[in-house]
Amino acid sequence: MPSLRTSNDETFLVINDSKKDSDLFYATRFLVGDPLIYIEHGDRRFLLVSDLEYGRAEKEADVDEVVGTAELEAKLREEGKAARLTSIADLFLQSRGGTRKLSVPASMPYIQARQLGELGYELECREDPVHLDRWIKTPEEIEYIASSQRAGEEAMALVIETLRASEIREELLYHDGEVVTSERLRVMAQKLLLDRSCQAEDIIIAAGDQCCDPHNRGTGPIPANQTIIIDIFPQSAETRYWGDMTRTVVRGEASEEARKLYQDVFAAQDWAIKELEDGACGKRIHQGIVELFEERGSRTEERDGSKVGFFHGTGHGVGLDIHENPRLGKVGHELKAGHVITIEPGLYYPGVGGVRIEDLLVVTEDGHHNLTSFPKGPETFEI
Amino acid sequence: MPSLRTSNDETFLVINDSKKDSDLFYATRFLVGDPLIYIEHGDRRFLLVSDLEYGRAEKEADVDEVVGTAELEAKLREEGKAARLTSIADLFLQSRGGTRKLSVPASMPYIQARQLGELGYELECREDPVHLDRWIKTPEEIEYIASSQRAGEEAMALVIETLRASEIREELLYHDGEVVTSERLRVMAQKLLLDRSCQAEDIIIAAGDQCCDPHNRGTGPIPANQTIIIDIFPQSAETRYWGDMTRTVVRGEASEEARKLYQDVFAAQDWAIKELEDGACGKRIHQGIVELFEERGSRTEERDGSKVGFFHGTGHGVGLDIHENPRLGKVGHELKAGHVITIEPGLYYPGVGGVRIEDLLVVTEDGHHNLTSFPKGPETFEI
Repeated sequence: MPSLRTSNDETFLVINDSKKDSDLFYATRFLVGDPLIYIEHGDRRFLLVSDLEYGRAEKEADVDEVVGTAELEAKLREEGKAARLTSIADLFLQSRGGTRKLSVPASMPYIQARQLGELGYELECREDPVHLDRWIKTPEEIEYIASSQRAGEEAMALVIETLRASEIREELLYHDGEVVTSERLRVMAQKLLLDRSCQAEDIIIAAGDQCCDPHNRGTGPIPANQTIIIDIFPQSAETRYWGDMTRTVVRGEASEEARKLYQDVFAAQDWAIKELEDGACGKRIHQGIVELFEERGSRTEERDGSKVGFFHGTGHGVGLDIHENPRLGKVGHELKAGHVITIEPGLYYPGVGGVRIEDLLVVTEDGHHNLTSFPKGPETFEI
Repeated sequence: MPSLRTSNDETFLVINDSKKDSDLFYATRFLVGDPLIYIEHGDRRFLLVSDLEYGRAEKEADVDEVVGTAELEAKLREEGKAARLTSIADLFLQSRGGTRKLSVPASMPYIQARQLGELGYELECREDPVHLDRWIKTPEEIEYIASSQRAGEEAMALVIETLRASEIREELLYHDGEVVTSERLRVMAQKLLLDRSCQAEDIIIAAGDQCCDPHNRGTGPIPANQTIIIDIFPQSAETRYWGDMTRTVVRGEASEEARKLYQDVFAAQDWAIKELEDGACGKRIHQGIVELFEERGSRTEERDGSKVGFFHGTGHGVGLDIHENPRLGKVGHELKAGHVITIEPGLYYPGVGGVRIEDLLVVTEDGHHNLTSFPKGPETFEI
């Protein structure tokens, strides 16, 4: 039974929308875009919902009791009080034995914390309530993630095959008589993912200098003979679990410098993946990649006010959030069997190009299992 | 120049991700899925971003000054302090004259409010910082919303034409040899919307008893001769503005009771739209619909523990959020010229079906302008 509290003596309160708050979805498995009240109190887990959600919550929510808020709201109004979510939670708690101490998530809106204070509650703030549970995935969760990743791989294949089949004319690419753009390829991938019940709003398909900014989604025509970073992270509309992968290609011929980048990133990723096992340290793996790049002469530094080289983390957990713990970076966690993480070193030099290679892996007792089988060797770079 | 504060003497601080916080996007026009620090201080508006975002923020953000946080972070680390977002904001404020009083949004995470308290700040909490500005749309914003709505209308046409062209066999619908399901129609609409640069994760296509739960997105085969509610709310990936519309149809023949529901809802919507003008009251319009339904014998009551009849609001503002102020419901605001709102009465009776008709309109000085031209008369109900 998923729980957000650290001990059964605690009363834990969340007021949020389970689309935004994946902890809340993790605890209840009830998805709704409007605020819910979730309470762990005594030995029970309660979900308080409006009339509009009651029927579905009864069917879907994994809690001990679903409570409709209409009566509580009516009672507050009778007393001349505003039917705020905090007041509803308060009235409910009073009816179930009461408490003066409440644990709440660190993300609780300040105004609600203030209202609870005014109602006489003493608040304890949990920075990351379900860390340890949520980081370690069950076999079912791993299968959900793997399934999103397989959909992502199909989309990756479609994008790369479209690039491969495109014709090079005056440094641009043409397919079906039209110029190939980031936007066109993105929509093509998104449509395929929709057929797999996945959404992927922010697919990155960025080329040339654009791909040297790792947060640039890419716009406009894709140039020939330049690096193209394709980063696909689909979320299943059914399970809500994400996949995440990146490949880098050049349609046409890469420069010698770009080839060297690819070899360096490929070597770094290969090294890092081999380090993965229960007990490995995310910070140390990141540091190892930093050193490997330095040794190979791929330096990280500032040029014209912008960072070049390797200036993002090596990886992150993936689950109900696309970026969750554990982290592999300047801040790095100890890795445990059952963690699902990315390994995604990258090198970015405007004028030369950017390369990132990203796989999604499960840490196991004695190593790892790669959920990504899409080819990535240096022979796949130029297409 | 958009501002979140109520006076220039105030220092206003937001720490959030502008994908989640549309106030922050409204103020900066800079979209990013990682936390930003936004500060209005003295006569200037600052955006503090990581190195990764710096280049793009310089180009895109509508602020007076973009500040990279790397130096501030390094300084905190030198002093042996954690480089928390609140500490970075504090250090920056100290370097710009300092203040002890801060206004923050009501949504600020409780933990950050506590950290700011520990850093010596006195916090003022703004429940809805940009209400008045954001509710009233500029002509440019109205065009963005209208454009999303037009894309939604195209998707609506595709869904309804597919239903119309489907063949009825044993109470189910078939199209291109396959059974017509909520999921298939939803994906079809989503793909069309992708081609219009819109995303629409949660399109509702729900039939029969499913559509009596207004939050049910709909699953499985669509039955013939039963009400089908189609609620399409696309968000432009480019402008981030939403559209919103609903139509209800029956493929085949509706029951007399269902026809009566349609007539009642159509009459209610028609009445409410005629009431729209600068100065109209959202609460009164909602109440008028409640009374109209009662007069026509379409009662709202509880049956078997669930509400039937009309049990949601009449409308809501639409803009950078799909549900924003002003509201037309039990809580209702005064409507002003420039508000963009939905009018969406509905009636839901399991066993009979559900009907909702929703248009998106701009309130004007002397009336309204309907951004929705998709047909909705009683003659459009049975197809």
